[in-house]
Amino acid sequence: MTTNYFNPVQSVYGPGALLRLPGLLAGRKAALVTFPEARAIGLLDRLEAVLGDSLACVIDQVRPNPDVAELAATWEGFWRQCAQVEVVIAVGGGSAIDTAKALMVGNDSGSFSDMINALAGDVPFRPTRFKTLIAVPTTAGTGSEVTPWATIWDREQQKKYSLHLRETWPAYAVIDPELMLSLPASVTLQSGLDALSHALESIWNVNANPVSDTFAIAAVRETMEVLPQLMRQLDDIGLRGRMALAALKAGMAFSNTKTALAHSISYEMTLRYGLPHGIACSFPLPMVLERAIGKDAGRDAVLAQALGVPLVQAPRLLAQFIEGLGVNTRFADYGVGEEEARAMLLHAQQGARGKNFIGAATAESTT
Amino acid sequence: MTTNYFNPVQSVYGPGALLRLPGLLAGRKAALVTFPEARAIGLLDRLEAVLGDSLACVIDQVRPNPDVAELAATWEGFWRQCAQVEVVIAVGGGSAIDTAKALMVGNDSGSFSDMINALAGDVPFRPTRFKTLIAVPTTAGTGSEVTPWATIWDREQQKKYSLHLRETWPAYAVIDPELMLSLPASVTLQSGLDALSHALESIWNVNANPVSDTFAIAAVRETMEVLPQLMRQLDDIGLRGRMALAALKAGMAFSNTKTALAHSISYEMTLRYGLPHGIACSFPLPMVLERAIGKDAGRDAVLAQALGVPLVQAPRLLAQFIEGLGVNTRFADYGVGEEEARAMLLHAQQGARGKNFIGAATAESTT
Repeated sequence: MTTNYFNPVQSVYGPGALLRLPGLLAGRKAALVTFPEARAIGLLDRLEAVLGDSLACVIDQVRPNPDVAELAATWEGFWRQCAQVEVVIAVGGGSAIDTAKALMVGNDSGSFSDMINALAGDVPFRPTRFKTLIAVPTTAGTGSEVTPWATIWDREQQKKYSLHLRETWPAYAVIDPELMLSLPASVTLQSGLDALSHALESIWNVNANPVSDTFAIAAVRETMEVLPQLMRQLDDIGLRGRMALAALKAGMAFSNTKTALAHSISYEMTLRYGLPHGIACSFPLPMVLERAIGKDAGRDAVLAQALGVPLVQAPRLLAQFIEGLGVNTRFADYGVGEEEARAMLLHAQQGARGKNFIGAATAESTT
Repeated sequence: MTTNYFNPVQSVYGPGALLRLPGLLAGRKAALVTFPEARAIGLLDRLEAVLGDSLACVIDQVRPNPDVAELAATWEGFWRQCAQVEVVIAVGGGSAIDTAKALMVGNDSGSFSDMINALAGDVPFRPTRFKTLIAVPTTAGTGSEVTPWATIWDREQQKKYSLHLRETWPAYAVIDPELMLSLPASVTLQSGLDALSHALESIWNVNANPVSDTFAIAAVRETMEVLPQLMRQLDDIGLRGRMALAALKAGMAFSNTKTALAHSISYEMTLRYGLPHGIACSFPLPMVLERAIGKDAGRDAVLAQALGVPLVQAPRLLAQFIEGLGVNTRFADYGVGEEEARAMLLHAQQGARGKNFIGAATAESTT
């Protein structure tokens, strides 16, 4: 069996990296995609100052967890009003970057329903027009700045779609920890745990490979070292930088494996219980780790290296780590009864991400 | 200050990965660039069988350390006889892959002297025609399969040129440890030490960045763990695979930093004393490490993580490791007197790679 690794995103890292944007644009016009609060917190002003005349178009009404219902108007508006730009700059968390990925690919009809029909029917969407993406994360966790995927929700249908095209790889990921200094504790925690989940899910994954493992081991170790310190010193630029790098590495890891069972569980917890993504995909990690251990000697070795303890102690250590950050790790803690949890787990195992889990086959037969 | 990381090579890894070649060609015709012994050891037959009708052209007279004098005829022959292929497949060590990088870029004049004049005069060579490169290393060390550079020698002028174009990034690195099973001990050792040198040189480097460090730390640790075992069990496919991955990671690291002082020293040792590259660039490592320590706290931390011991012990540990493999680590061991060594070091510090060394400024003033 052979494995593959490929990640063509150029990462630019450092405090003040935002100032590199004009150089990266190299004279091209850009559209900015960001979240509504960007104006109030002064971020939009700063971006306008940095980008100057290059900034041709602003979309600042990105909603958390982009939903097809709201996205349709934004997408059609983008292709009417911003069609002339060459570059899309996404500034924000995963929702802003994912929204930009949906916006950057267009078709001849100019109708968003073509994309949704394609996503829902699992038929490939073939863009005939597309933009270059520069992703500027303002949180440390999404990883979307180094993956080609976007998660798009359909709350009405209680579904989650994944947009995944060759054209939606960002050209650049610009990671500036200064942009993360003002993140509130809740978002810092949720995005940090999302990074941890990306890293671990890339290890207990049928698509794992030696390069993704290298990134995942570093990301798990660094997140577990840095995140608790960062939660106590939210304004420490050094810790913000280290967490941003851990999240980048977690992104580099799962960019080649996709996620697995914990994320599959999270989608239902988010749709049914409204749990924030970073909590929903991290509270089940100790449970999933327990199911992963012993399935494959190679995976066990990588997990032991990442977690730094004998595997027999690892699920308890991981649960203590997550609970130490104030996040409960059992379904019951979220009001999910035993029966419902069992059904949810079974359903999660059958989802596309659930099938990436190395323990998928065994787990199915024992639950 | 910001840092960058970019590596667009798709790596394909695993025993039997060679069989992925037809799929990667996807119907395109290929030229094979390999070393003369490939026929005698059965490798050429195997490649012909795997590639079938896709193989349109064979260049199997690649010489070690490609020299401009020999390369001219090969290059002009390639663009006369193989001009119709879309892909160049390089199978061999660094010399085969570097030769392929020189061959794959052509110009309208069809004259090799344009390229050499450009290299020698430090004027960019602007190819008007180029091929896609698939690099298939048969040694574990060169890293050339994941870098855009080729080293080209000019023995007559006692010079070493570096070809470095956007077009010379390989599209794929196909890493099949089965191809390394028959490597003799000498080449296994030299290429393994070359990998160690790439990894360490990427750390004590002004171009180091957090992603290159992640690869370098893994590569140093794995090379130091695996290489001595491999030297005792040359036919162990598991160890061959692990060493191949360590070399790949070292390549991913220095693909973004280039090398530093030890390589700068090596070029003279190879030109003047004919020392094999892997020995020439690794015997000075303990000496260079000693000069690197204390220059920068961040670099010290990464070196300590890579070498796994307090830095005060690290130069001795590294010397013991290299000497334990039968390679002497002092200039005197190679017949270089004190005076000549001092002059060589001074000259090496002033070379392009020497200037990448974090201790360059300080070292210059103290020697």
